[in-house]
Amino acid sequence: MTTTWVPGADESGFGADNLPYGVFSRGGAAPRVGVRVGDYVLDLAGLLGEPEFFASSLNPFMARGPVTWLAVRTKLGGMLGSPEGRPAAEPHLIPLSEVELRMPFEVADYVDFYCSIEHASNVGRIFRPNDAPLKPNWKHLPVGYHGRSGTVVPSGTGIVRPTGQRMEPGGEAPVFGPSARLDIEAELGFVVGAGTPLGRSVPVGDFAEHVFGVVLVNDWSARDIQAWEYVPLGPFLGKSFATSVSPWVVPLDALGAARFAGREQDPEPLPYLKRVADWGLDLAVQVELNGEVVSRPPYAAMYWTPDQMLAHMTCNGASLRTGDLYASGTISGEESGQRGSLLELSWGGKEPLTLSDGSSRTFLEDGDTVTISASATGMGGGSISLGEVTGTVRPAGH
Amino acid sequence: MTTTWVPGADESGFGADNLPYGVFSRGGAAPRVGVRVGDYVLDLAGLLGEPEFFASSLNPFMARGPVTWLAVRTKLGGMLGSPEGRPAAEPHLIPLSEVELRMPFEVADYVDFYCSIEHASNVGRIFRPNDAPLKPNWKHLPVGYHGRSGTVVPSGTGIVRPTGQRMEPGGEAPVFGPSARLDIEAELGFVVGAGTPLGRSVPVGDFAEHVFGVVLVNDWSARDIQAWEYVPLGPFLGKSFATSVSPWVVPLDALGAARFAGREQDPEPLPYLKRVADWGLDLAVQVELNGEVVSRPPYAAMYWTPDQMLAHMTCNGASLRTGDLYASGTISGEESGQRGSLLELSWGGKEPLTLSDGSSRTFLEDGDTVTISASATGMGGGSISLGEVTGTVRPAGH
Repeated sequence: MTTTWVPGADESGFGADNLPYGVFSRGGAAPRVGVRVGDYVLDLAGLLGEPEFFASSLNPFMARGPVTWLAVRTKLGGMLGSPEGRPAAEPHLIPLSEVELRMPFEVADYVDFYCSIEHASNVGRIFRPNDAPLKPNWKHLPVGYHGRSGTVVPSGTGIVRPTGQRMEPGGEAPVFGPSARLDIEAELGFVVGAGTPLGRSVPVGDFAEHVFGVVLVNDWSARDIQAWEYVPLGPFLGKSFATSVSPWVVPLDALGAARFAGREQDPEPLPYLKRVADWGLDLAVQVELNGEVVSRPPYAAMYWTPDQMLAHMTCNGASLRTGDLYASGTISGEESGQRGSLLELSWGGKEPLTLSDGSSRTFLEDGDTVTISASATGMGGGSISLGEVTGTVRPAGH
Repeated sequence: MTTTWVPGADESGFGADNLPYGVFSRGGAAPRVGVRVGDYVLDLAGLLGEPEFFASSLNPFMARGPVTWLAVRTKLGGMLGSPEGRPAAEPHLIPLSEVELRMPFEVADYVDFYCSIEHASNVGRIFRPNDAPLKPNWKHLPVGYHGRSGTVVPSGTGIVRPTGQRMEPGGEAPVFGPSARLDIEAELGFVVGAGTPLGRSVPVGDFAEHVFGVVLVNDWSARDIQAWEYVPLGPFLGKSFATSVSPWVVPLDALGAARFAGREQDPEPLPYLKRVADWGLDLAVQVELNGEVVSRPPYAAMYWTPDQMLAHMTCNGASLRTGDLYASGTISGEESGQRGSLLELSWGGKEPLTLSDGSSRTFLEDGDTVTISASATGMGGGSISLGEVTGTVRPAGH
């Protein structure tokens, strides 16, 4: 593990092996790009002076491409990992408590996949108990759909309970009102840095040439709205009211020690989806409801890997843009305590969770706070943190 | 009808009652905003000098809101409709043949609805012959989903035949290759000018406060890819390879004479969807395949009106951004010659169309050109044109 002279950073999950990027502002000043080290932000605009760091999003830096990403990471690692770098860098360290974190990137298109075989099977069993849990296509391609990029919000944004149409069980006509089944989905998001022109597919092996890094995603979901609207064109208003992302984009290069071959796939995928490198990711995810851990989904259990998702998303020639975000879909493991949604944790609302204060939950109540965090082994053997994405439910209309 | 001194404009569909906005460039110069009059572009940057017209998209102008839209339209109508305006405006008229038309606006989010009862019923009968043609939700809400905004392209862009997975009838495993069922969808698109903050719904009555104008949309569709992938999360790669839009955004104010109450709805929609103004639109749409008219879909037949679509899309608090595009879904009328897709015109490929050159079509062949155009009665009783959206199919991989 590379150690750093930044006080307290080595054991914080934000040491010299992590170096995630974000956007911050201090006082009333214009936003800038920074890197988190321990409980500090390293101000890259001040330190390096390049125009892409005097920016309100990571997009200009991400658009520079993988050669620049590696060069900047190597330079920062060198400065933070050796005493020689201290005189230049230390004046640009700002305590986290003095800054406000912003949305780290401007979202171009947002795609949500459905890559956990346990999640897809659980949802199938809950919604369609008399059918096979998985649809015939599920093991042949990473199922996905487009979401609303304009309502992707930074961690900490209040989540107003959405209003919409739902059909009550046994009802004759739909009713309109606040969702009674507000849920979360704990996911990992992949942020595209380097785009492609229309008509060019990205081969599985080119994943790291295009994807800059990862964030945590909470894909807030109104299950009652979704259940009524989604046939035949998929989820729409049950999802489009808000999607929260964590403030720090962890570069792919920080995840080297978390990589493994990925979960075995049977049947073997078609050639354009065949893996050529290890892009399974062994990340420990944690879901807290009002400060209490309610689930520990293992990202390693995901069936489809992110290089496969990207190859699939572009196999029809769809172009990529800097800022495209694609998320894994809900992360759920085999055990009941590893499910990444309340829909699964409460088995469709039939098995309420009991919290330590004695209250119980099927779906979210107004005032509930959900925090998703994750960590992994870093390149040097220490732990790296993906930070957290959090949000508190506000009453409908507020 | 307001007449204009611009030569040939009065009878062209682009007279003083239309005045649609677009973005053009001449020679190697930077793009500018203009208005089409006859076979000329009126250069608004040169004429009015405002910074929002020295722009590569209509977004800065659209963001100004409806008071500005009306003020500019009134001013232009006055200059073009009276001889007193001629000395100031004429120097800024540029022949269309001297300019290159660009994508008129930058697309924020793209939503596609499914608002034709004939189209939805036809698709239901073709794909699910043993079920009710319409799903239970269809008459209660305008069904819709998000599409890929990064692949919305201007009219004239070549459409590369997409490659993807499909399951052959009776097949045991999917195959990967160029789509064999490439189709069109003739639609009308609504362009949002004035956005809203997160958490605010747009009432049905506020439609014209937010929507700037309309374009024609061809939502190219690969039916074989779509049929295999779309369960349970909706269309994805079968649509995301390209969506074409026409170059001229016709302001809502130009469509006043085309407005009517809208098609009768039974059952009565829920209160948040109840119409309060006439936003049915009587537009005559025409679909040409290689120069031959193959369909004349009547927009007046649509079940859901655009004010209802907007109210539904935001009823969960989803925000709007300048540049949001939402499309009506395929426009199909009751007659067989009024269907807006080849899927319906060839009834799932079972009833090929015979073209005048003796060839037949079920779906599109490489080299085929599809052009969608539309017109309506203008405010003064003349005809106004929505222009056209066209595209030619290129072979897979080219």
